[in-house]
Amino acid sequence: MIIVLKPNAKPEQVETLRQQMQERGFIVQDIKGETTHMLGLAGDTSGLSPENFTRFDFVGSVIKVQEPYKLTGRRFHPEDSVVEVMGRKIGGGNFAVIAGPCSVESEEQILSIARDVAQAGAAFLRGGAFKPRSSPYSFQGLGLDGLELLKVARQKTGLPIVSEIMSSEYLEAFAKDVDVIQIGARNMQNFALLRDVGRLRRPVLLKRGLSSTIEELLMAAEYLMAGGSTQVILCERGIRTFETATRNTLDLSAVPVLKSKSHLPVIVDPSHGTGYWHLVEPMALAAVAGGADGLLIEVHNKPQQALCDGQQSVTPEFFRALMKKIEGVYAAVH
Amino acid sequence: MIIVLKPNAKPEQVETLRQQMQERGFIVQDIKGETTHMLGLAGDTSGLSPENFTRFDFVGSVIKVQEPYKLTGRRFHPEDSVVEVMGRKIGGGNFAVIAGPCSVESEEQILSIARDVAQAGAAFLRGGAFKPRSSPYSFQGLGLDGLELLKVARQKTGLPIVSEIMSSEYLEAFAKDVDVIQIGARNMQNFALLRDVGRLRRPVLLKRGLSSTIEELLMAAEYLMAGGSTQVILCERGIRTFETATRNTLDLSAVPVLKSKSHLPVIVDPSHGTGYWHLVEPMALAAVAGGADGLLIEVHNKPQQALCDGQQSVTPEFFRALMKKIEGVYAAVH
Amino acid sequence: MIIVLKPNAKPEQVETLRQQMQERGFIVQDIKGETTHMLGLAGDTSGLSPENFTRFDFVGSVIKVQEPYKLTGRRFHPEDSVVEVMGRKIGGGNFAVIAGPCSVESEEQILSIARDVAQAGAAFLRGGAFKPRSSPYSFQGLGLDGLELLKVARQKTGLPIVSEIMSSEYLEAFAKDVDVIQIGARNMQNFALLRDVGRLRRPVLLKRGLSSTIEELLMAAEYLMAGGSTQVILCERGIRTFETATRNTLDLSAVPVLKSKSHLPVIVDPSHGTGYWHLVEPMALAAVAGGADGLLIEVHNKPQQALCDGQQSVTPEFFRALMKKIEGVYAAVH
Amino acid sequence: MIIVLKPNAKPEQVETLRQQMQERGFIVQDIKGETTHMLGLAGDTSGLSPENFTRFDFVGSVIKVQEPYKLTGRRFHPEDSVVEVMGRKIGGGNFAVIAGPCSVESEEQILSIARDVAQAGAAFLRGGAFKPRSSPYSFQGLGLDGLELLKVARQKTGLPIVSEIMSSEYLEAFAKDVDVIQIGARNMQNFALLRDVGRLRRPVLLKRGLSSTIEELLMAAEYLMAGGSTQVILCERGIRTFETATRNTLDLSAVPVLKSKSHLPVIVDPSHGTGYWHLVEPMALAAVAGGADGLLIEVHNKPQQALCDGQQSVTPEFFRALMKKIEGVYAAVH
Repeated sequence: MIIVLKPNAKPEQVETLRQQMQERGFIVQDIKGETTHMLGLAGDTSGLSPENFTRFDFVGSVIKVQEPYKLTGRRFHPEDSVVEVMGRKIGGGNFAVIAGPCSVESEEQILSIARDVAQAGAAFLRGGAFKPRSSPYSFQGLGLDGLELLKVARQKTGLPIVSEIMSSEYLEAFAKDVDVIQIGARNMQNFALLRDVGRLRRPVLLKRGLSSTIEELLMAAEYLMAGGSTQVILCERGIRTFETATRNTLDLSAVPVLKSKSHLPVIVDPSHGTGYWHLVEPMALAAVAGGADGLLIEVHNKPQQALCDGQQSVTPEFFRALMKKIEGVYAAVH
Repeated sequence: MIIVLKPNAKPEQVETLRQQMQERGFIVQDIKGETTHMLGLAGDTSGLSPENFTRFDFVGSVIKVQEPYKLTGRRFHPEDSVVEVMGRKIGGGNFAVIAGPCSVESEEQILSIARDVAQAGAAFLRGGAFKPRSSPYSFQGLGLDGLELLKVARQKTGLPIVSEIMSSEYLEAFAKDVDVIQIGARNMQNFALLRDVGRLRRPVLLKRGLSSTIEELLMAAEYLMAGGSTQVILCERGIRTFETATRNTLDLSAVPVLKSKSHLPVIVDPSHGTGYWHLVEPMALAAVAGGADGLLIEVHNKPQQALCDGQQSVTPEFFRALMKKIEGVYAAVH
Repeated sequence: MIIVLKPNAKPEQVETLRQQMQERGFIVQDIKGETTHMLGLAGDTSGLSPENFTRFDFVGSVIKVQEPYKLTGRRFHPEDSVVEVMGRKIGGGNFAVIAGPCSVESEEQILSIARDVAQAGAAFLRGGAFKPRSSPYSFQGLGLDGLELLKVARQKTGLPIVSEIMSSEYLEAFAKDVDVIQIGARNMQNFALLRDVGRLRRPVLLKRGLSSTIEELLMAAEYLMAGGSTQVILCERGIRTFETATRNTLDLSAVPVLKSKSHLPVIVDPSHGTGYWHLVEPMALAAVAGGADGLLIEVHNKPQQALCDGQQSVTPEFFRALMKKIEGVYAAVH
Repeated sequence: MIIVLKPNAKPEQVETLRQQMQERGFIVQDIKGETTHMLGLAGDTSGLSPENFTRFDFVGSVIKVQEPYKLTGRRFHPEDSVVEVMGRKIGGGNFAVIAGPCSVESEEQILSIARDVAQAGAAFLRGGAFKPRSSPYSFQGLGLDGLELLKVARQKTGLPIVSEIMSSEYLEAFAKDVDVIQIGARNMQNFALLRDVGRLRRPVLLKRGLSSTIEELLMAAEYLMAGGSTQVILCERGIRTFETATRNTLDLSAVPVLKSKSHLPVIVDPSHGTGYWHLVEPMALAAVAGGADGLLIEVHNKPQQALCDGQQSVTPEFFRALMKKIEGVYAAVH
């Protein structure tokens, strides 16, 4: 951490600060130039809040040099992590597609889609049982009944299931029945939920918040890993910007950035990332070419009648053709 | 809801859609012009998801005309709501300031601050017992012990207490001990928490999410009110933009916009909204001049040693002087 | 255009508005439902400003249905446009890479880079002679001398040259010497310059503004085409968002969106779009997989000594290897 | 400037960099801690581009400590600047309102509005002769004829005139006839225009770009001042964010931030900043309470028939009443 002093800082003020920092165990060094004077703090500064120093009217700015994340960073874990669930792997050179409907609607629906996506080559089945909806009057999901239907689909197809948890109330049910627990974009900074899910030590799919920075995503993963998770998948799903032609702005550059900073696998959700089914193919292929470890794709057998997100779901036929193209691009870049 | 058809829509496609909508109880009307054909749907369309229609390749766009919120809107509740707690009122011509530290740190700290802000004219005491922190390694608050200290401060000063809930785990404690339950920006779309807190039927302070639209804030309040809350205070606290000179960009125009759309009281938090104590005064005064029903201001007796948010907290002395200026501006605009 | 009336609109107010619109030649139709009353305007509404109607206190909102662009849209020009310069084509199934340094620095530099990129397969040479710099104290480019050096490079390599114009002052020089005139992001809404360049009827490369919507980019192209341009290339180069891990957020979904709305070729600039040379490869490949018609890549022989943008430039060796990978991905998706 | 080295930097790499920097005249100092090694560069680093160092794979990050602006900053010019035009002052304790229509439409219109706003207490008359419009098919202003009408209005009312220049083509006309030359938001980074207008040494009103940071606004002013301007007024007029309830998000905190960093006067445009006439009053009063040196307000005698921006213009009657309220708030805070 570097403390940049204002030109008018008085020597006695600086001395007092220096002593305070030394008492807290930091090594303090001066950097002086013609027009600048800074203090460099060395030691473990991860517990220091840089902003507090700016209270002092003789401090101009404070710069944090160390990354605030430890467990998720590459620094102490240079090799790629591989998340493995029922024999399916993501990360470290393993690519996997997670597919399925926005929400589980009926046994017939989820079974039909699960069979189709399994046949097309998906490695995981996704399906929402609890749905975060911006309106209290919208369909909120089938709840625990939805989880039961997902279990039936898993049994029939062998696909591990991915489903979103919205509240610690259902921790036990998810720990027992769900193979990869998803934490959605709107709960990415629900720290109580992150802490509770972390303790389950189950595979977790963590989606980036709508307006969360890459660093905040890594800090949310840090909560999971500090709690005990070792198998965390990061997911880019679009951020909120001024552009309204798409539902969100898919930030594909987050893939190589995340992979350079973290050892965790990174997947992309082009369905939520764009909000329109006809943009799913180009953005899925772009994600693969850009280095993603996997994809999360919404597939619905009757998109026009879907209870949510129909406009961004592709049909099973479309998905099958898309999987072939994904293979082609993957082969071209690996 | 208006469905705009593409120029190449076939009559039989339009006819099928028309019948489907009529079967669901909507009145369907044609709007035809030289180059456009639209269908207008009348009836209660609040349960319809406009996006689903755009699946049809003959549909160009769909426009929702009705506001998605009912209980929070002015349409069926034209007069201002007044939130009243222990004789203190906010809204409908009543102005109140909520003040206190970011987090409760000790009995001495909270009592000292509570007495100071009470004397200066604050109507409520704020203090965090559970703190949402982006790092798992940062101070997370004193928890239930913090609530106990707030109760002591309430007893000594008579100030009702405002504190943030982060998880449904502590619903009972908050229902018993906290006068105004705060839902923080990062939990504004934690729908499970909104639903649970709504059921308590206690006064709630709902902060706008970092990247939430004004409509989403009203929908979050709708969750609370649909659950049973009747006393909801909305709080603008800055949104995330590209500008980095301030911690967030305080959107003061949200105040008159919210007040035109909703009957609920609207307050402003210039401390989080700017992130710097020296911007608190100009933005507090601006909020009052812009029509806010109240303010939320972080006050700390030793900001340089605060365990969080020290750089945005003002001292008790500063707060006392600020309250006088606030009165002056309030008088000038009322 | 649809005018949504407020519930309390008086019949005589609506009648007056209806007559005004009919007098201006529009067909006005009523859409009435249980709770809504709208007026649909048919005819050429491209000259109407929807906002003006919201002045009337009985109007709730106004919705524009027609797209505001004509010449750039697919509606009256369904087939792809192909831009052809000195035998090199972009668009309509033709893919091309534009490469070169941020700015022309010396004859040796531009010749060396031009030869390298030509050999690696680039179809065009880019190089800045006039540089838009946020500081008046930064290197501003060699000006007309830079154009002379580009001409030398063109003569030696046969590559057509792409260079940015910053002011109408140099229209003549650019018309005479530059094969594709670039309008940079910061001038995308410099309407005087758009109009003047449009009149030259030369090929133009139009970059999206930092915070311009896709619709605004198409409207800027509309200025060029209304002025006389027929050969316009659109370029996505990253937008400004809250994320600071990259210089800009490259909006790759803009590629398929632009191509669905417009017949113009769309290329991507991963160098400016990310700001870091190590992100250029993944984003270049992603752009190709996502359907781009070309790429704009900064190449510098000595990036560490470049007078601008060194951190986002790749070396000629890197570029040669990248071109091979680009070919692979292109083959996989076409 | 501080160069943060990566943990794996080799001593010989660091040594080479150190020598290069010393040769360029900088004093280089080491800052070493348990886990970090940095180099501090002292001297005039305003010409160094921090990004170039990040090309070296042994450099982690580079931090610029000095502000990039000199003439606009408070460092070497601590006292407030006062802009004075025809006896009217803005800044340094002087408050002034600039009012008038979006665009000059006719002699009758501009004269009528000019008289009304003069009588109500406005100090300057604004009126657009050249209009930046996103569509080439929209009304583009009366051009030089518009300037003539403004001169008539000035003669009749004594109000100095403020009008926007869009192109260097009309430099001479503006230098001769316009008292305060406005550079609009879309041209804030039209560096050629900034340089040309700076050379005129006339008072300039510089509006913040839609997505320009506060630092970029100060750098644009630096262009003007480096060219020769000494009388520059900065104007906050709303930035582009994800919120769509308002046309832009008025960033009122920019006022105190700008005033702390710069000596130049800062005014606020609540008309463009919000886009709706009914938000002009609360935001105008908020701006005054927040410390603005002036306001820019769109006034139109027949807003519903205005050729542009009618929805954000207030009537002369409304303006007169608003001026009284502005006085009240101004008195309360000064």
